Amino acid sequence: MWAEGERTRIVLHLKSKTPKAWAQEAVANIDVILLDHAHCEKKAASTALSLIFRYPEMEHMLRPLTAVAREELEHFECVLDHLEARGCRFEKLAPSPYAGRLLKILRTGEPDRLIDMLLCCAAIEARSCERMTLLADALTEPTLKEFYRSLLASEARHFMLYVDLALEIGTEDAVRARLEEVMEHEAEVLFLSGSGPRMHN
Amino acid sequence: MWAEGERTRIVLHLKSKTPKAWAQEAVANIDVILLDHAHCEKKAASTALSLIFRYPEMEHMLRPLTAVAREELEHFECVLDHLEARGCRFEKLAPSPYAGRLLKILRTGEPDRLIDMLLCCAAIEARSCERMTLLADALTEPTLKEFYRSLLASEARHFMLYVDLALEIGTEDAVRARLEEVMEHEAEVLFLSGSGPRMHN
Repeated sequence: MWAEGERTRIVLHLKSKTPKAWAQEAVANIDVILLDHAHCEKKAASTALSLIFRYPEMEHMLRPLTAVAREELEHFECVLDHLEARGCRFEKLAPSPYAGRLLKILRTGEPDRLIDMLLCCAAIEARSCERMTLLADALTEPTLKEFYRSLLASEARHFMLYVDLALEIGTEDAVRARLEEVMEHEAEVLFLSGSGPRMHN
Repeated sequence: MWAEGERTRIVLHLKSKTPKAWAQEAVANIDVILLDHAHCEKKAASTALSLIFRYPEMEHMLRPLTAVAREELEHFECVLDHLEARGCRFEKLAPSPYAGRLLKILRTGEPDRLIDMLLCCAAIEARSCERMTLLADALTEPTLKEFYRSLLASEARHFMLYVDLALEIGTEDAVRARLEEVMEHEAEVLFLSGSGPRMHN
């Protein structure tokens, strides 16, 4: 039998496993992690919305992406609640270089660019799911522990949704092969990402 | 006693009244109006979100704008339902020059720019409310008539919300005076806007 972490990694197609030290640093800096998390949820909503702006003719994506955007905004509000309960302000935070570097894999020309964009979104959701699992395990404060547990299912669902949206555009073989490439790239980008407590450092 | 349209105009601070011909053209081209309306809801959601991105430190705006963004996305989904029920596709549509021209009134320097931005958002909500009232009155098809009636309260609420957000930043006198200037500008911009059936032509 696989350990729980290993199963998560395989189901989510992740090509690397976050070291335990990440969760320890995250828990020790939970206020910064929450702030970064709030920014991530906001960014995820805005990315889903920007895909609708850029590809209005992609009818199969309209409703799923609108639903994702609304859900990410709900999560954003939940993270704001937790920040507030802890007496922390929402404010600017230097983002991790992770997302910007991840998107360097986008091919030019359509539909390749769109497929890659959807797979990068999938990769981010997958990594978030893995990290939130670690966070939920490592946290001792019951409210926050429960909060991160409650998010896991939707992160995993969003990962699958983005992959499914890509599968409706490209052939199954091509999309599955590209997913593996994107996930390899994601692991490299994460390995090279910045220091400091962030969801994706 | 004022006629209903005149009351709407005054409550919403509008400086011009949409001619009846607009509603006739809109009803005759309701599929294009619905498509334009869908784009407007999407744009409204994205504008609310972009304000959170640009001004994360403006704590009083975070939750109201997140709620607005979610509500506009719900409306977007409703308009998609109506388009679909009518056998129409969601697709690109050349936007009215209205919003772009409206924003030319933004002052540079903060908090002036933000106050103006909020008041421009208020102006757009006010005009949308007036136009949807006309549309609800002119439509005979019961489902759509009811749909537009159902949106009026939230458009008016959003108008007031944006004004309130501005009032928390500037002094009451300054914001109220600027609101009048923005609304005068809005009426001019609308008068000069493009032809063709659009929410804001």
